[in-house]
Amino acid sequence: MPKIETFSNPRPQRDYIIRHVAPEFTSVCPKTGQPDFGTIEIEYVAGRLCMELKSLKLYLQGYRGVGAFYEDVVNRILDDLAAACRPRWMTVIGKFAPRGGMHSIITASYSPARRARSRK
Amino acid sequence: MPKIETFSNPRPQRDYIIRHVAPEFTSVCPKTGQPDFGTIEIEYVAGRLCMELKSLKLYLQGYRGVGAFYEDVVNRILDDLAAACRPRWMTVIGKFAPRGGMHSIITASYSPARRARSRK
Amino acid sequence: MPKIETFSNPRPQRDYIIRHVAPEFTSVCPKTGQPDFGTIEIEYVAGRLCMELKSLKLYLQGYRGVGAFYEDVVNRILDDLAAACRPRWMTVIGKFAPRGGMHSIITASYSPARRARSRK
Amino acid sequence: MPKIETFSNPRPQRDYIIRHVAPEFTSVCPKTGQPDFGTIEIEYVAGRLCMELKSLKLYLQGYRGVGAFYEDVVNRILDDLAAACRPRWMTVIGKFAPRGGMHSIITASYSPARRARSRK
Amino acid sequence: MPKIETFSNPRPQRDYIIRHVAPEFTSVCPKTGQPDFGTIEIEYVAGRLCMELKSLKLYLQGYRGVGAFYEDVVNRILDDLAAACRPRWMTVIGKFAPRGGMHSIITASYSPARRARSRK
Amino acid sequence: MPKIETFSNPRPQRDYIIRHVAPEFTSVCPKTGQPDFGTIEIEYVAGRLCMELKSLKLYLQGYRGVGAFYEDVVNRILDDLAAACRPRWMTVIGKFAPRGGMHSIITASYSPARRARSRK
Amino acid sequence: MPKIETFSNPRPQRDYIIRHVAPEFTSVCPKTGQPDFGTIEIEYVAGRLCMELKSLKLYLQGYRGVGAFYEDVVNRILDDLAAACRPRWMTVIGKFAPRGGMHSIITASYSPARRARSRK
Amino acid sequence: MPKIETFSNPRPQRDYIIRHVAPEFTSVCPKTGQPDFGTIEIEYVAGRLCMELKSLKLYLQGYRGVGAFYEDVVNRILDDLAAACRPRWMTVIGKFAPRGGMHSIITASYSPARRARSRK
Amino acid sequence: MPKIETFSNPRPQRDYIIRHVAPEFTSVCPKTGQPDFGTIEIEYVAGRLCMELKSLKLYLQGYRGVGAFYEDVVNRILDDLAAACRPRWMTVIGKFAPRGGMHSIITASYSPARRARSRK
Amino acid sequence: MPKIETFSNPRPQRDYIIRHVAPEFTSVCPKTGQPDFGTIEIEYVAGRLCMELKSLKLYLQGYRGVGAFYEDVVNRILDDLAAACRPRWMTVIGKFAPRGGMHSIITASYSPARRARSRK
Repeated sequence: MPKIETFSNPRPQRDYIIRHVAPEFTSVCPKTGQPDFGTIEIEYVAGRLCMELKSLKLYLQGYRGVGAFYEDVVNRILDDLAAACRPRWMTVIGKFAPRGGMHSIITASYSPARRARSRK
Repeated sequence: MPKIETFSNPRPQRDYIIRHVAPEFTSVCPKTGQPDFGTIEIEYVAGRLCMELKSLKLYLQGYRGVGAFYEDVVNRILDDLAAACRPRWMTVIGKFAPRGGMHSIITASYSPARRARSRK
Repeated sequence: MPKIETFSNPRPQRDYIIRHVAPEFTSVCPKTGQPDFGTIEIEYVAGRLCMELKSLKLYLQGYRGVGAFYEDVVNRILDDLAAACRPRWMTVIGKFAPRGGMHSIITASYSPARRARSRK
Repeated sequence: MPKIETFSNPRPQRDYIIRHVAPEFTSVCPKTGQPDFGTIEIEYVAGRLCMELKSLKLYLQGYRGVGAFYEDVVNRILDDLAAACRPRWMTVIGKFAPRGGMHSIITASYSPARRARSRK
Repeated sequence: MPKIETFSNPRPQRDYIIRHVAPEFTSVCPKTGQPDFGTIEIEYVAGRLCMELKSLKLYLQGYRGVGAFYEDVVNRILDDLAAACRPRWMTVIGKFAPRGGMHSIITASYSPARRARSRK
Repeated sequence: MPKIETFSNPRPQRDYIIRHVAPEFTSVCPKTGQPDFGTIEIEYVAGRLCMELKSLKLYLQGYRGVGAFYEDVVNRILDDLAAACRPRWMTVIGKFAPRGGMHSIITASYSPARRARSRK
Repeated sequence: MPKIETFSNPRPQRDYIIRHVAPEFTSVCPKTGQPDFGTIEIEYVAGRLCMELKSLKLYLQGYRGVGAFYEDVVNRILDDLAAACRPRWMTVIGKFAPRGGMHSIITASYSPARRARSRK
Repeated sequence: MPKIETFSNPRPQRDYIIRHVAPEFTSVCPKTGQPDFGTIEIEYVAGRLCMELKSLKLYLQGYRGVGAFYEDVVNRILDDLAAACRPRWMTVIGKFAPRGGMHSIITASYSPARRARSRK
Repeated sequence: MPKIETFSNPRPQRDYIIRHVAPEFTSVCPKTGQPDFGTIEIEYVAGRLCMELKSLKLYLQGYRGVGAFYEDVVNRILDDLAAACRPRWMTVIGKFAPRGGMHSIITASYSPARRARSRK
Repeated sequence: MPKIETFSNPRPQRDYIIRHVAPEFTSVCPKTGQPDFGTIEIEYVAGRLCMELKSLKLYLQGYRGVGAFYEDVVNRILDDLAAACRPRWMTVIGKFAPRGGMHSIITASYSPARRARSRK
């Protein structure tokens, strides 16, 4: 996967919300080998680092050939982005186009605090 | 009814939300014998198991010949899906097309905790 | 007024939400004698009884010749429906079409608990 | 039926288009006795007379107790309005609310010229 | 297939347009055996006969178990309805829900005149 | 300003919500003398009195020649209406049309309780 | 009425279309004395002169105190604007807000050629 | 490119319109190497052959790795599809997602007749 | 102004339509010095040359500091683009954001044939 | 940057909400030198001072030539406006147009209380 680049948060002392919406996401269904399409929404409160937009775009493009279930895709993106910019809080939402007359939305969140007390 | 198949939740340690929207639901009115149409929305937090999409589609198609009131349909779907994947929490919403100039929305939720302290 | 018929709640042990939306409501303005038009939305958690849809439609049609202010219409519907099916909780919303360049929305709720401690 | 009143066309020498849209129309189904609901749209080029709005509203309210098929309703309105104001051209469109999962739109036009060469 | 019933056109001397929109159409895919969903729109100028709405609804419900391609469905409906009411002109449009990330719209028209000079 | 008339609240023992939306509001900009346009939304829980709709319309029309800033207009309406019907709670929202490529929304609320402990 | 000012058409040798949309129009009903509200749309092909926007705005504001029927308002605006800038072609559309549950759209056009052969 | 499969047109004697809309198209920009996204709409009147939907989907997926300008993509699709099913008439429209704050729509049509008298 | 670059039309023998929509246009009002905002839509049938998108974007950005009336802006863009790529036909539409409660749309077209027989 | 002017809050004793929406914001990308476009929304509860609208417009226009990241733009606007009118609470939201197939929304809030206990 291409690496997420970062830049210094211009107001680290303030908890403000950054949201990026990427409607051109595509990956591959691991069962059928057919392409899946969807919109990825990322919302976070930065710590010391903000994610640079061009590298974020390239990172998401890296899924173009990857085969994975919706549930897996969203959790992997959340893990990778959280590792790259160490946010105070982050949510990733994947809204996928209809397959078999049904569409799916997956929503996963991360916060260091919540992580500590997570299930085992 | 066709059986709901499941696969292992890829992040069981995280409480994330999975939502499936099925706008092609049809059953039969038990009073008139006429077909009913609607959208079924399912939202849940998986435990160890996620519902597999194709089997979910086939399960919902199983109502094509079933005669049941809206209130009954939504509660039966909730019971069956909860039994199949044992979620941490689940909501089923049925939005039905107008009949006699009136349309109906039924919303039912399940959680093991809430179940324990439910009414008798 | 036509009588609201009921049937047994198929899951009385679960608190689930039933919502009916009736966009074809009409009554008469008590001041001008002109017809009023609106949408009536009813949301409730059933106790032992659910309201039967056809009788609900006929009940609402019963207002076709009734002269009453918006505020009165919504409260009377709420009182009648609550008396008929004794819900755990119920809300009635009336959204009325514009008159004199202004439109109105009236929202009234009922719950047995709240009723006990209501104003005198 | 209440009478359509008219006033002098302020620019009879110019062919301009007048359109009235009445979304609060209701009549009665001749088969079931149940109320029908719809929107009536009227478009015309006036000759010497324009239709007065309040009398047009009262005329359309006159259908509140009338039992007639959609096709009949629209043609009767067209005949009555055309007789009342003798337009150069007139179209009446009825857009009716869904019944049995199906909604209907009826469109009828009148022009003195076309009338002369109409079918027998 | 259930039979289309008709009633006498109330204004046969006028060419006016009747349009029925049925958003609850379902048939079966002949390749996969899976249900298809769509909206059927019918527009016609009646001759001596209008189609009765309830029988039209029942006729369209007759496709619930029929396996046929979209192109075939729309042409069969057009042929059957035109045979039943002998219109001056008729168009049938089928708008089908997405399958494999793609949705389809089929539009077929009939007029006795055009039929005479049709291809062989 | 025209006087707000009132009528007896038909259910004073119940806290229900009344909302009036008036999209035809116009006043005058005190700096430029140009007309301003907007929508006024009023939401309240009545005490003993409900506001009569026609007098409310005439009251709002009374601003047609008044020069005042948006912030002032909304607060004056709130003060006048609250004085006239002594509600348990009231909110007035003014949504004004764009000026200089920018539009404004002002929201002010009143409740007797909150009033007592208000800032000085 | 304030005067419409003009400026030289920058491309008089080309027939291009200019359209102005003014959603903040208000006049007075000549029967009830109540304000009317609407949107005025003006479309024209300029000859030697284009209408200046600020003077057009002030001209339309001039109707704020004028009592006139919809049909009259639209034709007067068309006559005044056409006299001021002598266009090759002009249309004025007035879309008025609902009164008595009905809204109206008036459309009038002008062209020097069509004027010559107009009715007497 | 995957091959377009066909089946026999069920009503070759009638000129009816078939439209497929594929909102999940992606190709690659030949200048930047970045993915492009868009919707491809195909409308045609079949001759003896209809295009089979699954093979059409696979054909369009074949552009996932292809580098080509928008104008080229749309014309190539039109050429390939027309060659495969020899329609009486066909139009292909490509609606591409924004790049550099600008989005593009390309529309190309084919008919055997028009082809004969085309430019050289 | 930045120069429009071109590339060879990939199908010069076919008359197909290219449309670019640029919603991020800004220029300066020549009377007030304030910025104007709008959307520029360009539609053309290419001759031998297509306009390259990046240079088109830069050309439109070139108006950021230019003071000109709406009517002038649209005609200048049309003249410049037509000179750069010599299309068979071209239309430019400018849709400008509201000023003084009024918004404007300017539409200008060019074709070599029509140019020859244009007014003098 | 142009200075924000203020006027006396007409109801300083009441906490009411003022919201301004400016959809014509443009700045410059510090990496590419290309213009960025967006909508700036400002919501605040005034203390003693309200922001005057014309000076706010001119202040936002001051960013037309400024190069800054989205995150920086929104925080600078918040700091400048809060310093100018010393609100009880303020939020600034920047909604930026798509770049590279992705759009961004930045939301930052200020309150004197929260400021005191902010991170260091």
